[in-house]
Amino acid sequence: MLTASVCTIGDEILIGQIVDTNSAYIASKLNTIGVKVNHMQSIADDESEIISSLRLAVSKTDIVIVTGGLGPTKDDITKKAIMKMAGSNSLICNDRQLNVIEEICKKRGIELSDLNREQAWVPDNCQVLVNKSGTAPGMMFEIDGCLLFSLPGVPYEMQFLMDGVIEGILEHRKPESIFHKSIITFGIPESSLAKQIEEWENNLPAGVKLAYLPSPLTGVKLRLSMYGSAIENQEKVANELFAALKPVLGNAIYGEGDDTLEKVISAYLNEENSTLSAAESCTGGKISSMLTINEGASRVFTGGVIAYDNRVKVDLLGVPEEIIIKHGAVSEECAAAMAEGVRKILGTTYGIATSGIAGPGGGSEEKPVGTLCIAVSGPGFTRSKRVRLSGDRARNIDRFSSETLNFLRLCLNIELPL
Amino acid sequence: MLTASVCTIGDEILIGQIVDTNSAYIASKLNTIGVKVNHMQSIADDESEIISSLRLAVSKTDIVIVTGGLGPTKDDITKKAIMKMAGSNSLICNDRQLNVIEEICKKRGIELSDLNREQAWVPDNCQVLVNKSGTAPGMMFEIDGCLLFSLPGVPYEMQFLMDGVIEGILEHRKPESIFHKSIITFGIPESSLAKQIEEWENNLPAGVKLAYLPSPLTGVKLRLSMYGSAIENQEKVANELFAALKPVLGNAIYGEGDDTLEKVISAYLNEENSTLSAAESCTGGKISSMLTINEGASRVFTGGVIAYDNRVKVDLLGVPEEIIIKHGAVSEECAAAMAEGVRKILGTTYGIATSGIAGPGGGSEEKPVGTLCIAVSGPGFTRSKRVRLSGDRARNIDRFSSETLNFLRLCLNIELPL
Repeated sequence: MLTASVCTIGDEILIGQIVDTNSAYIASKLNTIGVKVNHMQSIADDESEIISSLRLAVSKTDIVIVTGGLGPTKDDITKKAIMKMAGSNSLICNDRQLNVIEEICKKRGIELSDLNREQAWVPDNCQVLVNKSGTAPGMMFEIDGCLLFSLPGVPYEMQFLMDGVIEGILEHRKPESIFHKSIITFGIPESSLAKQIEEWENNLPAGVKLAYLPSPLTGVKLRLSMYGSAIENQEKVANELFAALKPVLGNAIYGEGDDTLEKVISAYLNEENSTLSAAESCTGGKISSMLTINEGASRVFTGGVIAYDNRVKVDLLGVPEEIIIKHGAVSEECAAAMAEGVRKILGTTYGIATSGIAGPGGGSEEKPVGTLCIAVSGPGFTRSKRVRLSGDRARNIDRFSSETLNFLRLCLNIELPL
Repeated sequence: MLTASVCTIGDEILIGQIVDTNSAYIASKLNTIGVKVNHMQSIADDESEIISSLRLAVSKTDIVIVTGGLGPTKDDITKKAIMKMAGSNSLICNDRQLNVIEEICKKRGIELSDLNREQAWVPDNCQVLVNKSGTAPGMMFEIDGCLLFSLPGVPYEMQFLMDGVIEGILEHRKPESIFHKSIITFGIPESSLAKQIEEWENNLPAGVKLAYLPSPLTGVKLRLSMYGSAIENQEKVANELFAALKPVLGNAIYGEGDDTLEKVISAYLNEENSTLSAAESCTGGKISSMLTINEGASRVFTGGVIAYDNRVKVDLLGVPEEIIIKHGAVSEECAAAMAEGVRKILGTTYGIATSGIAGPGGGSEEKPVGTLCIAVSGPGFTRSKRVRLSGDRARNIDRFSSETLNFLRLCLNIELPL
């Protein structure tokens, strides 16, 4: 199986000024085409650091993909460093890249400067990967049997070369395959989940690896990975293994791959031709925001009311004032009235509601920070419940939101058939 | 100057399933307290890989910060690997972490399992950094003169230990100082900003470094950094330099440090004893969510209406149907009526509104994807405007939200006095 390492170059990464998203993009792409990424690293704009780190990478993996440091300014020194590593002594002008540079300058109305022109000059022993989406060309070197690719750090230029050029080069080398398949659960904490599926996990066939990927917004993802060709019919094997989990985990399993609670709910409502509205107090718009981040949300999500102040709960949502006086705004009764209210005023099939204490202030002995009351109202029913979570304000808001969506999911009996 | 390297552990990073945001957070924090990050790497859940990579890191820098692989499940092997590295042969139970674990399980209503309990067992030669926000403790080792910290990979748990514990430990070791000071601007794209302040930047004193930190939600931050003690009165020098920018950038400068648009707006409204409501169409709750993520939001943010469907705009917000027929829902007129409507029905001092096309569908020649109409209504005035942005759906929603908050900021004349 071909192995790779990914190196991103730039001081802005090492001082934490930017989050490196290139590495994940490259890794995901390599994975899909069957190259295993063994190592990722970020290196400063320092020639000796670049050379020593890349030498080590070249000695350890079949492929090294480098991004960054190819720009026209002084702090971009990757080309010079790799040139030394690859034993090249002279630069030659690449006419195809020069054409691209001329066109780009013309389009942008900039005069072609020496700095721009220099970008078309490449080490004499590299294969040029023409970059049609920017001025700096990609370069491919063979060093001691390792393929080293140097790409620009601008994400869409890097993506253009990964998708359009490098994918083709690597697929030609026919690497072995990697197979991944995931299912997603909600409602069982990671440690309990591990205990519940312990026997299943211990009996996984050799060559099948399990990973737990927890997230406050989506729940715990379980991923099976199979490397190489030791296992035939990988899809079938994964499906059978997951099917065996169904009796153990039941309706906690709600999706697969990139599914999220809001995606499976939206898909279900769309299928059913139903609509949804939300009355949010403590979640302050987070649930609506999660529901509308997906395209096509307008087909199922009619809208909502952020009832942050109690007056809004009463005046706009029609929550009876007595409920707030008797039970408080953070109560199952208030959440139920909010869900019924938003469902009624927006005329939707279902209404959901949240009322809770995200913190850090506002808690009491009876209702500490982390207390959440949620409700779902639909044709002929309203259900509500109280949960207790713990975390800081931002995390509480995230977990409050996913708990509410999960409660809706369970009320709608949405689960993954396996 | 103390040097550090950052290692994140987990197969999910190397297959590109998640973007590693921990490294940037850690690097930024270390930078602020005066530690220089020389190297970052991501390593698979593989014992020999972890050991060899960490050995190299320990030999090269004064501090190594490791995250990930401390969970309760089988794929979490960091503790075992570091134990071998650090020459520990036995685990001991840390009672303080065990207490935290017991409390968390109790709060969540989970029975304490062996897996949970195991998390409190740590190598006998480490110093435990009690993790109050999760079950896995942080650990500190001294290996060949290097301080190695092992932290959980869950971002908020890692952040809790970085901010609350490690920062204190490292500041105690008195590294050389790095001084940073930032101001934040909104409304001028990074490249134009760079052009406008070119002369100022070229004349910065030796030893003062400028960085541009653009973000779709907050605008472009300008950060001045001074390393070591070459410059005296760093605070004063930075203040004078920033003051010289005021005549150039004017009211585009709205904050400093960790300010955000929503923070400066909330502080202003709180001071003024005013309240705010939001009517969101295309932003789907994002603005309300941004306003309520900060503590104390309830003092100024009364609530809002997510008017995703046009019926909600008409029925709930009272937008005249003729406006939608004549100008369309995405129009300055509709946004103005929405802002006035939400201000009226929630009885707030100010009302803001958004209506636009986030994409990818829904665009037309006259109103392409990226078109946004926004409005602010207050005592005796309503102002609206149209802007054109470009990006994918998620980025458009972010930029739509910050454009709207910035419009409100300008209507309220909020700027940073320098």
